Amino acid sequence: MRAARIPDLEAALVQWRSAIGAENVITQASTLAAAETATFFTTPWIPAVIRPGNREEVQACVRIANAARVPIYPVSGGKNWGYGSKVPSADACLMELIRMNRIVDYCEELAHVTVEPGVTQGQLYDFLRSRRSRLWIDASGAGRDSSVVGNTLERGFGHTPYGDHFANVCGLEVVLADGENVDTGFSRFPGAKAGPLYRWGLGPVLDGLFSQSNLGVVTRMTLWLMPAPEYFQAFYFRCDRHDDLPELINALRPLRLNGTLRSAMHIANDYKVVSAIQQYPWEATGGLTPLRPEAMESLRRKYNCGVWNGSGGMYGTRAQVAETRRLVREALRGRVARLQFLDDRKLELAGRFAKLYGAVTGWNLSRALELVRPVYGLMQGIPTDQPLRSCYWRKRALPEQMDIDRDRCGLLWCAPIAPLEGADAAIISDVTARILLKHGFEPMISLTLLTERTIGCVIAITYDRDVAGEDEKALACHEQLLRELNERGYFPYRLGIQSMDQMHGVSGYNSLLGTLKDTLDPNGILAPGRYETRANEAPRVPRTVYGAE
Amino acid sequence: MRAARIPDLEAALVQWRSAIGAENVITQASTLAAAETATFFTTPWIPAVIRPGNREEVQACVRIANAARVPIYPVSGGKNWGYGSKVPSADACLMELIRMNRIVDYCEELAHVTVEPGVTQGQLYDFLRSRRSRLWIDASGAGRDSSVVGNTLERGFGHTPYGDHFANVCGLEVVLADGENVDTGFSRFPGAKAGPLYRWGLGPVLDGLFSQSNLGVVTRMTLWLMPAPEYFQAFYFRCDRHDDLPELINALRPLRLNGTLRSAMHIANDYKVVSAIQQYPWEATGGLTPLRPEAMESLRRKYNCGVWNGSGGMYGTRAQVAETRRLVREALRGRVARLQFLDDRKLELAGRFAKLYGAVTGWNLSRALELVRPVYGLMQGIPTDQPLRSCYWRKRALPEQMDIDRDRCGLLWCAPIAPLEGADAAIISDVTARILLKHGFEPMISLTLLTERTIGCVIAITYDRDVAGEDEKALACHEQLLRELNERGYFPYRLGIQSMDQMHGVSGYNSLLGTLKDTLDPNGILAPGRYETRANEAPRVPRTVYGAE
Repeated sequence: MRAARIPDLEAALVQWRSAIGAENVITQASTLAAAETATFFTTPWIPAVIRPGNREEVQACVRIANAARVPIYPVSGGKNWGYGSKVPSADACLMELIRMNRIVDYCEELAHVTVEPGVTQGQLYDFLRSRRSRLWIDASGAGRDSSVVGNTLERGFGHTPYGDHFANVCGLEVVLADGENVDTGFSRFPGAKAGPLYRWGLGPVLDGLFSQSNLGVVTRMTLWLMPAPEYFQAFYFRCDRHDDLPELINALRPLRLNGTLRSAMHIANDYKVVSAIQQYPWEATGGLTPLRPEAMESLRRKYNCGVWNGSGGMYGTRAQVAETRRLVREALRGRVARLQFLDDRKLELAGRFAKLYGAVTGWNLSRALELVRPVYGLMQGIPTDQPLRSCYWRKRALPEQMDIDRDRCGLLWCAPIAPLEGADAAIISDVTARILLKHGFEPMISLTLLTERTIGCVIAITYDRDVAGEDEKALACHEQLLRELNERGYFPYRLGIQSMDQMHGVSGYNSLLGTLKDTLDPNGILAPGRYETRANEAPRVPRTVYGAE
Repeated sequence: MRAARIPDLEAALVQWRSAIGAENVITQASTLAAAETATFFTTPWIPAVIRPGNREEVQACVRIANAARVPIYPVSGGKNWGYGSKVPSADACLMELIRMNRIVDYCEELAHVTVEPGVTQGQLYDFLRSRRSRLWIDASGAGRDSSVVGNTLERGFGHTPYGDHFANVCGLEVVLADGENVDTGFSRFPGAKAGPLYRWGLGPVLDGLFSQSNLGVVTRMTLWLMPAPEYFQAFYFRCDRHDDLPELINALRPLRLNGTLRSAMHIANDYKVVSAIQQYPWEATGGLTPLRPEAMESLRRKYNCGVWNGSGGMYGTRAQVAETRRLVREALRGRVARLQFLDDRKLELAGRFAKLYGAVTGWNLSRALELVRPVYGLMQGIPTDQPLRSCYWRKRALPEQMDIDRDRCGLLWCAPIAPLEGADAAIISDVTARILLKHGFEPMISLTLLTERTIGCVIAITYDRDVAGEDEKALACHEQLLRELNERGYFPYRLGIQSMDQMHGVSGYNSLLGTLKDTLDPNGILAPGRYETRANEAPRVPRTVYGAE
């Protein structure tokens, strides 16, 4: 029995029930089994799920856990797909903050909102629409039900000028391992008017300590929102040759660096695009995997997509957007096979006259629109479940209600950060294609011009967990990919629970972080192993033994 | 004798001499006296100045200090004027990092530079010009000789789109109190290509711990630089009535919030403008102080300035700037008395034909140019010593070589952060005018649209330290100002060494920061009292007893 691993579990359960109500301390086998299921093979065990309903209950739960030495793993919504979902980095009770779903403050004029961890992007979007707000959120591609706070703390990103999520928050409310409560920034001063407005506050800035971290539980956060521009227009382009990538990136760099392109624009390869539209062509391939690059040509033709497919948003007044359009056109001239611009009016017209429009322009709009609409929406911060469809790529069917953990969709992300340089993008693309194809997976790549100087590459290893042996192959592939990218100087911006040993660098950061953990959480009860590292020590998270249980 | 306060000082001095050379361990009375002199009355004692020449020497010095329990106070250049200059927050040996003045890395394409703490803004500016770089720094108004790293760690700000300095750095190299060395961000991984490019790295973000902090000594930092725009144009405006301020601020807010105005534009009151041009009108006032608001009218007329005087930069292509100009014009229509635009060509023409130009346009350009040029340069990141002149406002003469510590210029800054709201700006302006005039000082105010949502107010208490009683009056004035602003919800973004007790908030931040200090610096040798706070404890820095020694 694994219960022996956590000796005082029973005592903690009794106290939690009394602190937050028995209905919020769940030990039902089906709930635990669901919570223990990610999109790849994992071993950590969840003996119980606790669901505190407010900050005081989080504090009570943490104090009980600390006294009883029972590890807890806090998640906001637990939709950490491709990185471990709700599964802890080591055996622990799951603390789900989904009941804490209040939008506690909102200011239209200065464009910010304060939310609890259970607030989803769909909820926040709907809230603003119901208030007839002129403010936009930045949505990640993780669907309507994913937590805003969770994604932001993991430093996720989206598609608008507010795409770098952690760069657009302030004023965290945090519960430490001893149950104490900390407000960061100016919010620690009662009545501070700039609490939700100014990031640094006074004195050392502690926000970063609680991002990608196991040093505290964030129970509240202020997000900055983007005022809707007078005018929005999207641009789409494609490149038809693999080797077009470096020049394309280099042509876009000056526009990103000088602020002409303010948003985190995306470039996806053909595999990525096709996986968003259809499932694996089982019939055409006779069931053989992986889909070789040679086989992509007909699919590209079918969907009118390129080897590389870019999209970006332009925001501002009509004149500002017109000038951006001119500069984008100029930068991409001769470097892309097709450059299209789209706005609300054109999209509406296109929907109404798709056939006629296609005849006139030669662009098959009906099909394109299906693909274009969700991305077009994301560039305006409209969350969508559409990208989740690509998780079913290797599945045989697509359910009405998607639940990628339950449906045993295989998904492992690997997300290295590269300089905003064509040569770096090419290396990452080549390394990825070689390693993924070798392991039997399709290299699905998207490159996001995440900041003025960097590309956030997102590589998906997508497979079917119901096919024997695939779990093992996928983890081996991921490990090799991460290692080879690291060797070339490309380190991930984020880690899955299976890769926390990658936290080890060489400088004193290791021992400093270890010291901080030992000081703030001496009993190691908060998310043990998560973004943790210790100097001169073997990683505390053992390497996964595939298939062992 | 005060030496008794630091028992093992002699032993430390011997070891420091051996570690970094006797010539870099200074106990000469004149050097110490100069280092103990700020722009206001201070009591802390500096028994020695040490000047390590590289990171290894910093580590050696810190280890020696730690073993001997001798407090050290690290400064980059020590030009922390108005906040304490080089004077420590409590008795300590001064560790000056001025010898560490290397520019260790530079990349034109991705627009970044890595510098040591001794690098000045003037040096960095000259370096880029000598390389014929197309990159701009963001300069603060603190003159050519002030340290880039020091200003950034104090979260200073300037006048370009990169105005919020701490928002545009990454990859800190830090020496901790135990002498260990930490690299933040991706730089902890050997060979990481995004080390100087991506702020967050992997895992908890530690940069903020070392800003406005006494938790470590920053020995290196990467700064992001701004690509020079194709075209730059400045705008200047003035308002002739005190009560114009709120509407003005509210009119500018949407442009700042939506990214049309990307830079930290400034609005200065008449006192601030006049103090930059001339010294106190001793003759006209018969030596009476303060200069009453009624007396400002003739000076405003003389210098053609308003009660409020704004300036901002517009950056981009010609079309981008043209559209910004249109939007600024539209926003300010009917709200300002005069709106002027200026670019290189116009400035050059104006210089050549000042008289003629004045006759045609009615604008006295010769005089205006003298005032305009330095600010125009600052908006392009060109450092200037001109703003230092205002520190001599209450002096009788202006020396050829300015040294405001030596020349006993009195200067105390108070810099609250306010929401970007007209009503808040008005409250701060009114509170400031009332309190400063009551204490006998002129209310010099500048309001910087520091971020999309905040105003950084900078209030200067400027006086002559050679006038008996003024030191005491200035400190009392500063204390009342800070207190009354705090009571209204406006907290400072930065503190002088005399105000470190203001760090105390009410939440667990206090005890968390205390715990971090105790853990990382158990002997309290790094900058004791600086941005430090402890829960349930009286502030460790005693309130200044004026005049006691």
